[in-house]
Amino acid sequence: MKFGGTSVGSVERIQAVARRIHDRVKSGDRVIAVCSAMSGETNRLIELADQVADRAIDREMDVLLSTGEQVSIALVAMALSDLGVPARSYTGPQAGISTTSAHTKARIRNIDPQPLQTAIDAGQVAVVAGFQGANSADGEVTTLGRGGSDLTAVAIAAAIKADACEIYTDVDGVYTCDPNVVPKARKIDRISFEEMLELASSGAKVLQSRSVELAMKANVPLVVRSSFSDAPGTWVTEEVSEMEDIVVSGVAYNNKEAKVSLMDVPDQPGIASSVFSTLAAENINVDMIIQNVSTDGITDLTFTVSETDLDRAVATLESLKPDINWGRLETDQSIAKISVVGVGMRSHAGVAAKMFQTLADNGINIQMISTSEIKISVIVERKYTELAARELHSVFGLDSPGS
Amino acid sequence: MKFGGTSVGSVERIQAVARRIHDRVKSGDRVIAVCSAMSGETNRLIELADQVADRAIDREMDVLLSTGEQVSIALVAMALSDLGVPARSYTGPQAGISTTSAHTKARIRNIDPQPLQTAIDAGQVAVVAGFQGANSADGEVTTLGRGGSDLTAVAIAAAIKADACEIYTDVDGVYTCDPNVVPKARKIDRISFEEMLELASSGAKVLQSRSVELAMKANVPLVVRSSFSDAPGTWVTEEVSEMEDIVVSGVAYNNKEAKVSLMDVPDQPGIASSVFSTLAAENINVDMIIQNVSTDGITDLTFTVSETDLDRAVATLESLKPDINWGRLETDQSIAKISVVGVGMRSHAGVAAKMFQTLADNGINIQMISTSEIKISVIVERKYTELAARELHSVFGLDSPGS
Repeated sequence: MKFGGTSVGSVERIQAVARRIHDRVKSGDRVIAVCSAMSGETNRLIELADQVADRAIDREMDVLLSTGEQVSIALVAMALSDLGVPARSYTGPQAGISTTSAHTKARIRNIDPQPLQTAIDAGQVAVVAGFQGANSADGEVTTLGRGGSDLTAVAIAAAIKADACEIYTDVDGVYTCDPNVVPKARKIDRISFEEMLELASSGAKVLQSRSVELAMKANVPLVVRSSFSDAPGTWVTEEVSEMEDIVVSGVAYNNKEAKVSLMDVPDQPGIASSVFSTLAAENINVDMIIQNVSTDGITDLTFTVSETDLDRAVATLESLKPDINWGRLETDQSIAKISVVGVGMRSHAGVAAKMFQTLADNGINIQMISTSEIKISVIVERKYTELAARELHSVFGLDSPGS
Repeated sequence: MKFGGTSVGSVERIQAVARRIHDRVKSGDRVIAVCSAMSGETNRLIELADQVADRAIDREMDVLLSTGEQVSIALVAMALSDLGVPARSYTGPQAGISTTSAHTKARIRNIDPQPLQTAIDAGQVAVVAGFQGANSADGEVTTLGRGGSDLTAVAIAAAIKADACEIYTDVDGVYTCDPNVVPKARKIDRISFEEMLELASSGAKVLQSRSVELAMKANVPLVVRSSFSDAPGTWVTEEVSEMEDIVVSGVAYNNKEAKVSLMDVPDQPGIASSVFSTLAAENINVDMIIQNVSTDGITDLTFTVSETDLDRAVATLESLKPDINWGRLETDQSIAKISVVGVGMRSHAGVAAKMFQTLADNGINIQMISTSEIKISVIVERKYTELAARELHSVFGLDSPGS
């Protein structure tokens, strides 16, 4: 059972978390709880560091930020004891979580299941600090970066072969689309890992790709549910044949990307590789890529990056001009990516045609297209984000019947 | 260099601490810094725990409270790096501090000097979390109780054979008496460990007895000085012969004690032992003890305890009534202890007489007397605290000449 920052954000919320764990234990389940820092705490600590020093030191940031989860686990363990549930807190290092040495963005290398298994065998609830571990080189505390607590929970569930990993959050499950944009969005009862992965990487924020990937690899069923209600939530599991009956499971959007076009690029071998390896070396993630057919040995290269990386991407490309001799550089921040996702696409033809027709019928021009086996993504003008999402949601039969 | 909670209480104070360490390093000294939690932080965490659970769990309290110092050391290390001083934070466990297993009131067992010596040899400033360690049994984090950060600093200074241990605080040294009570109190330039120990146990709050005892045992000179100024502070060192010239070094008072009298106690062997061992088993510290000469096999037993322990002391004594068969129990909270301390007393006669005469001249009745080789303490009515302290301060020549 993994509880995020809002779920442990106050004294009352921590007590509610303890009651929920208590009820589960009383019903006969054996539980490991993973907790994030109380909401606001991580930002408070980052702000202190920003004020104290001009340059943050990654190692010290981890020493600093790991205290947030440590506070949560001590409080949750005490709240559980108060309810008569034997409980014991574990920092990431104490829970046997080994990571790489990359401070502030470490990756989990291995989890020694022994400390937590010992707690379970002793009838204790282990309350584990999310988002942190110890590097295998010298045992220094490390943190896992954004979404790290989900990763901790999934990795522990995999290591101890848990029946399920429940992610408690402030929404009651995964939706067919963001309900803020598509009011008729429905909660999904069950979805495959592959679909969840495509939705997550297409902009759905409820779960991060890294966690879903890990759960898929270890085949740990995920449950996304609300810490504020008893609603059953969404199960994310292996694909089962019934899932194919649903052609499109969800519609996702991302309106935080920017488009970069490199015009009049000499069409020579190694140019694209040079561009994208240099961007990767600068830690700039490139999403969609399109290269037009070459005319007269000259081509155009267009791709999308996160808006926050745009300035660095442009600087990197400018630095490559002497080598690559491109003609013009154009950027566009007024774009959005709209994706439809569903394992049913594999066996149902015409999904792409239906998507493009729907957009055309609504006067929405398609700038870029990218497809995978179970996903179609298009880039359109940003002002059409909500319209495109709503129309596609409706045309693929996802609208809630009640509304 | 040990910095207390107020010394690291804000972003600006942390930066000032870093500048002070920077200047010291530039002048050629090698420095280990020990930091407390930012002022207010420990109380904030205790309050959270109080609200979350009815009963605190000692182990979890240590997990919780140790985060306070961990935040400080990360911030100080980053502030130092910002000034170009190579620095690295160490939690208590990382600094090799082993303690007993008594959570929330552990005692330091041993310090492995190797981790900190390695930092020093590498030209780094080690920034160590005060107040915490790891128990030697299973490496769990422990805290040392009130005044624990001073203890950490002195123990580290002893382990690495430091030239001195500087305690930075919000006053500029040890005074001949509390300046709030005796405006003519003077800062002491140099005082012996024994005198400091007597002053600390007589009510002076600037240093705690445990830290002074440890410094005396390891012969580590202590320096008490202000983190808000460059004033030289007070050196606490081994006794040197010049110290004997000063008959009385300081006057201390404690008006937080209560007097307990057990009247009409059968004067049999083992009675006093039974009373005080039972109180000790309840963790009630007894300060002064007086037993009158027995008349007709019946005696009176009077002693003082901390006011906060009074109710528990009375309950304990009531529980002993069937065994000891004492007659009456009287308590008095309107008392104060006044002490004069000085190694010069050993070689100068008449200090006690002068003290008693001064109190008598001011109409102050003496209720109890207790003496050591270098200290005389009396119990008087609490309303005379300030008057007694001021008159004794003056008669023993301690008044500041300027005022």
